[in-house]
Amino acid sequence: MVDDGGAAVAAIDSPIITSAHKVAIAGLGLIGGSLARRLVERGRFVVAWNHNDGPYEAARAAGMRTVDSLEALAQEKPDVLVLATPLTAIPDVLKRLRPVLLPTTTLTDVGSVKGPVRAQVKDAGLIRQYVGAHPMTGNEFSGFEASSSTLFGDALWALCVEDSTEMSRFLTVADMITQGLRNRFICIDDSTHDRSAALISHMPHVVATALAALLSVAPDRDIAAALSAGSWRDMTRVALTDPARTEAMVVEDAKYVADLLQVLSTKLSGVATSLSSVAQDKREIPADFPEIRSFFESAQPYRNYKKNQARSAASAEESPLTTITLTDQQWQKELLQSARQGQQIVRLISTHEFQVTSAPSW
Amino acid sequence: MVDDGGAAVAAIDSPIITSAHKVAIAGLGLIGGSLARRLVERGRFVVAWNHNDGPYEAARAAGMRTVDSLEALAQEKPDVLVLATPLTAIPDVLKRLRPVLLPTTTLTDVGSVKGPVRAQVKDAGLIRQYVGAHPMTGNEFSGFEASSSTLFGDALWALCVEDSTEMSRFLTVADMITQGLRNRFICIDDSTHDRSAALISHMPHVVATALAALLSVAPDRDIAAALSAGSWRDMTRVALTDPARTEAMVVEDAKYVADLLQVLSTKLSGVATSLSSVAQDKREIPADFPEIRSFFESAQPYRNYKKNQARSAASAEESPLTTITLTDQQWQKELLQSARQGQQIVRLISTHEFQVTSAPSW
Repeated sequence: MVDDGGAAVAAIDSPIITSAHKVAIAGLGLIGGSLARRLVERGRFVVAWNHNDGPYEAARAAGMRTVDSLEALAQEKPDVLVLATPLTAIPDVLKRLRPVLLPTTTLTDVGSVKGPVRAQVKDAGLIRQYVGAHPMTGNEFSGFEASSSTLFGDALWALCVEDSTEMSRFLTVADMITQGLRNRFICIDDSTHDRSAALISHMPHVVATALAALLSVAPDRDIAAALSAGSWRDMTRVALTDPARTEAMVVEDAKYVADLLQVLSTKLSGVATSLSSVAQDKREIPADFPEIRSFFESAQPYRNYKKNQARSAASAEESPLTTITLTDQQWQKELLQSARQGQQIVRLISTHEFQVTSAPSW
Repeated sequence: MVDDGGAAVAAIDSPIITSAHKVAIAGLGLIGGSLARRLVERGRFVVAWNHNDGPYEAARAAGMRTVDSLEALAQEKPDVLVLATPLTAIPDVLKRLRPVLLPTTTLTDVGSVKGPVRAQVKDAGLIRQYVGAHPMTGNEFSGFEASSSTLFGDALWALCVEDSTEMSRFLTVADMITQGLRNRFICIDDSTHDRSAALISHMPHVVATALAALLSVAPDRDIAAALSAGSWRDMTRVALTDPARTEAMVVEDAKYVADLLQVLSTKLSGVATSLSSVAQDKREIPADFPEIRSFFESAQPYRNYKKNQARSAASAEESPLTTITLTDQQWQKELLQSARQGQQIVRLISTHEFQVTSAPSW
């Protein structure tokens, strides 16, 4: 242990817990339910609470213990308590947990934005126990009835820490992910997470919704819908998600999503302008349109990356594992650096040594 | 037969061929190859030409006859000749076919835009024999080695006719689709096709490419790519298509794609503006944002449509079939009307009576 504030305090008044044997889940929706099922299947003890007892019978049949209040959930003395409620419910849930959550319980969440949740946890005075998390899985369905342990079959998680995060808290959640779920994770800071999530998920959800809205008002929408095939189906699938859930996700990550939408809007408008001038001299086709050519070429790094990814997936079951070693002083930055290099953590060897996979190159 | 120009001429100098026993395919790429495989499997005679003989050995092993020139292909006296080359090659192929195509052969194509191809066929003087077609199938791969008869397993085709199209030509291609492939079709005009295809395919291809390009230049692209899950994978899948093929498709349908991109760009920029003002007063979350709420609600008709579609797919193997009857005078308009009602033609009962499915409602 070094002498920075957080770690020193941790050494004094909270035991070093690095295994998550007993996991409490607040919220048995698609994600909370699937997470709970997977943990039970992998032999962990799961106790769950939901805002109504609709899923309780099925949850008990699946091997979970259910309790009737958030207070009772905290009093179960879980190693980890996972907030899996809708984002909009988190402030209220935190208010109720504050007086009852034991200091030995590590608090985490599965919300799709991390900066705002951390701010709410800070407001609730629970930041010392907190490590933010975001499993990169889901689908367009909702509710415990849609939950399945296979949703977490090969999920990658983002764990979000800041400089004051206690390493023992981080290790507890990391244990839940790697041993409890046999999932992988990367460890980054909130803003890197929220900016990246805006790019690869939140902003695309808005785009999918905008496409579905365009079809909804098209004069020949029956014909267009009939003609739609795989490309349309795939590009609008997430527009079928419960719009309230998507709205909450996008609103919580508003700044990054807004920035990206503006960039995308400008890019699409530029292509529209180039295409309009092509349409003017239609008789010239086939011909060369350098602006349009360079637009299509601008996605080439991604095509190469996917090709390399497919190649490495085909060449071996598992990519070769390497080991990273962390220091007590800089472990957060070392983990961020590891993530930037495309590494993913698959196993904890010890508290300071992790096995990581490496990413395909771009 | 009525006394309009086209039909009268048809009655005089071209026999009424309504079955496509022998099908010639020009171009053994993903689409041409898959089409050929499916026709062979369903017992039709297929003769194929490709701009190089790379796929010939595999094509012959799959039961096709191969010929070494377009001239030889035409001289095989096929009932239908399908242009399945890249769009950019069509003008040249037509020039070579013009002097050799027999009047008894119906000419069709599988290009993803129909107005420009019709113009090229007119320029080549082959319009009397022509019915445009577009099978709504494909994937991000290319070439005969990627072809499979399952690509045409349950495909819907758009057949494109205009007022002067000869009914016998239309029936020949319709036979290839319904009996030769066990596929379905709708019959519309070129501009309805090209506008609809821009909406549900060509414009989304541009959007997918723009998304992939954004990730390609993101500072934390390794982290963002690692965090990407189903929504990103699905929304960028078609960006992996051969960009030259996508570019040709988009350029040929430039006007409609440009219009839609401009509408989408404005819509996304509007959402960006709303989200920026949300980001300003972040402390108000959770709160109500009417503009953002109404944006997400604007896709509700599409969500309802998909729900109805899934419900009718779950309730029965096949939706109940009804029969439509065509007149000699107005058959093109009657078929367009049928398509506008969401009907799809699955079987020809006779030359003027078709079995149709009905669409789920919005």
